[in-house]
Amino acid sequence: MLGHVVKSSLIEPDGGVLIDLIVKENEKDLKFLEAEKMMKIGLKKIDLEWVHVISEGWASPLKGFMRENEYLQTLHFNSLRIDNGSVVNMSLPIVLDIDDETKENIGSANDVALVGPDQTIVAILRSIEIYKHNKEERIARTWGTTAPGLPYVEEVITPAGNWLIGGDLEVLSPIKYNDGLDHYRLSPKQLREEFDRRQADAVFAFQLRNPVHNGHALLMNDTRKRLLDMGYKNPILLLHPLGGYTKADDVPLDVRMEQHSKVLEDGVLDPETTIVSIFPSPMHYAGPTEVQWHAKARINAGANFYIVGRDPAGMGHPTEKRDLYDPDHGKKVLSMAPGLEKLNILPFRVAAYDTVAKKMAFFDPSRAKDFLFISGTKMRTYARTGESPPNGFMCPGGWDVLVNYYASLQAEEATPAAVSA
Amino acid sequence: MLGHVVKSSLIEPDGGVLIDLIVKENEKDLKFLEAEKMMKIGLKKIDLEWVHVISEGWASPLKGFMRENEYLQTLHFNSLRIDNGSVVNMSLPIVLDIDDETKENIGSANDVALVGPDQTIVAILRSIEIYKHNKEERIARTWGTTAPGLPYVEEVITPAGNWLIGGDLEVLSPIKYNDGLDHYRLSPKQLREEFDRRQADAVFAFQLRNPVHNGHALLMNDTRKRLLDMGYKNPILLLHPLGGYTKADDVPLDVRMEQHSKVLEDGVLDPETTIVSIFPSPMHYAGPTEVQWHAKARINAGANFYIVGRDPAGMGHPTEKRDLYDPDHGKKVLSMAPGLEKLNILPFRVAAYDTVAKKMAFFDPSRAKDFLFISGTKMRTYARTGESPPNGFMCPGGWDVLVNYYASLQAEEATPAAVSA
Repeated sequence: MLGHVVKSSLIEPDGGVLIDLIVKENEKDLKFLEAEKMMKIGLKKIDLEWVHVISEGWASPLKGFMRENEYLQTLHFNSLRIDNGSVVNMSLPIVLDIDDETKENIGSANDVALVGPDQTIVAILRSIEIYKHNKEERIARTWGTTAPGLPYVEEVITPAGNWLIGGDLEVLSPIKYNDGLDHYRLSPKQLREEFDRRQADAVFAFQLRNPVHNGHALLMNDTRKRLLDMGYKNPILLLHPLGGYTKADDVPLDVRMEQHSKVLEDGVLDPETTIVSIFPSPMHYAGPTEVQWHAKARINAGANFYIVGRDPAGMGHPTEKRDLYDPDHGKKVLSMAPGLEKLNILPFRVAAYDTVAKKMAFFDPSRAKDFLFISGTKMRTYARTGESPPNGFMCPGGWDVLVNYYASLQAEEATPAAVSA
Repeated sequence: MLGHVVKSSLIEPDGGVLIDLIVKENEKDLKFLEAEKMMKIGLKKIDLEWVHVISEGWASPLKGFMRENEYLQTLHFNSLRIDNGSVVNMSLPIVLDIDDETKENIGSANDVALVGPDQTIVAILRSIEIYKHNKEERIARTWGTTAPGLPYVEEVITPAGNWLIGGDLEVLSPIKYNDGLDHYRLSPKQLREEFDRRQADAVFAFQLRNPVHNGHALLMNDTRKRLLDMGYKNPILLLHPLGGYTKADDVPLDVRMEQHSKVLEDGVLDPETTIVSIFPSPMHYAGPTEVQWHAKARINAGANFYIVGRDPAGMGHPTEKRDLYDPDHGKKVLSMAPGLEKLNILPFRVAAYDTVAKKMAFFDPSRAKDFLFISGTKMRTYARTGESPPNGFMCPGGWDVLVNYYASLQAEEATPAAVSA
């Protein structure tokens, strides 16, 4: 493993340069005036999340919503060949849809203005290209199924227009959500600066969309130990919860962020060597295809180690009683993915509740009966019913956040609509 | 275009060396005795076609049916990273399925024997690996749809077992069909030798599964002219009909081979600069995914130019009234496909029947109304009803072959089953 030790703390962003598509402050007014005269396209909430993602360089070297050549390479190869001949990973189509009428209205315009859900102009899309949105093919090639009930498909793709519009983005102002969490939303550039400031010589990223339990903490802490053993002096953990669209039964972002804070306050993770930040991407739940995106984006933010567990970005099959993806395919696909060769993939052993040691521990198959697996669903059931999970499953401060969240949900459900309206 | 001229006549096979998996004559008896003691797996007709394909190196550097790491790279990336770090194209899963009972019977064996439909031992599969056959995911990622009615899916995948078995192939004897066409079945090695013998300095391959009409001939002859203009002295056409599984309403191989012979006899194509040979692969009808396989296999046979037209390897959507694939996606995907950079892709203009010139000609949009498009379906309808196509659509000798074929079909249909049995 020592052979993997790299000298520089951070890997270069994909394509060599981190894309920054936010226009300079002194050009903003001029661009705004220009945009006002353009044909306007309305962005949905998720579209705006993608504008955010693209604008800060998470998808570098992508300069905007995909044109057809990028879209086709993504669907067929999960990667893009760039001008210098090298290959970068790109597994999810990052696209903007329009309907027939909008296409008609755009006519032969070269540039269009993108308008946020609050009706303000957010960005200009330059040198546009409009091409067919074959939803069936997009779904089949991205998810490996066309079964009804995929959250992103039902929320985003099914209601989408029959055309996709690609082009180069110029974003007029950094995207803000004003939800009290914007200070957590560090861009790849800001994260790289923070890693430099802390003199990190290794950055290991942990993607999550769930509360942190002690099993997660175990493997993050264990990873740090492994990196120290490998010779790194100052490995920094990027605890990087996904902040964009998630399915309805996932724990909402604000609750998760509060829970993550408690985990650091309770000392389960060390604040000195941990950076908590929000990854602004929406969630596809596309398993092995999506985990590549999760890893690629973190390269652009400066990570050189990526922790991957069982069934990353997976979910249950929407119509059959089984996991949608083979739980091992995520890490296998990740380890072979074009453009991710420079990232060190750290697969981890499964952690479960050890009923003898009364704590979360790496599963030991020689005494399998001592271990209790607590799934996300099981955890949510505990929190919802007010039942306590086994002692040592999660720090008490973090657990209270979840219990309070589910109690507030039940209170809401119990409140007659007429009163709450 | 002159920049494309290459010095050596043939491109290296994928991976540098052409795989030859047929055991040496002097080892054959020993291997046979060894195989007799192994657990035996029955091959279906299509499996045997794949054994043929793999054994001769069409799929080089693949050394046998895919193990899971190759299968996953194929599904997700349409390419394989090989030991020397380079990337070869591999867009179709080349896999062998087994059912639960067979898996049980294999147990922990390392090697198995493969038995042909005629019950003779065909090959040994060494260092086997058995893994799950997720049919839904395979279909979705290969075809970009899971709609019922895909010919290869219905014929091969739906009835297949729930497991795939990969390993290294040792084929005991070259695969022969004894259908009077084996002399057309040149291996990649034989083709390369033939190109050398003819001192070809460019080889342009034309994949087809239909009779050759004068529109096809026009573009093959036009390609030759273009290659001469580019500075090549002796471009050779590889007319390379697909010989494996095709769907029921395609014209059968023996009829097509007879038709192709007539086209050469009638001088529509020049026998001096044309090699007619059979490509032993089965047909997937998987459009942009499959056209990569068609091109990649021809690299291994020594082609350095590949002709690609409208909607290669495409078909109608099985349940909707449209083409399954965007007719332009095939050539776009081919031009961007990883591992195919060394192949020169030659997209061609659409040929149609020019009712003024009374011949097949490149479509001229400025006088669109003069052109008649004759689809494969339309052509088959002409031949079936005995109606003549417009003069100049196909050489008379070739056309007679088709008319006779459809007449024989009708005669068969008209014969009561009791008599024909």
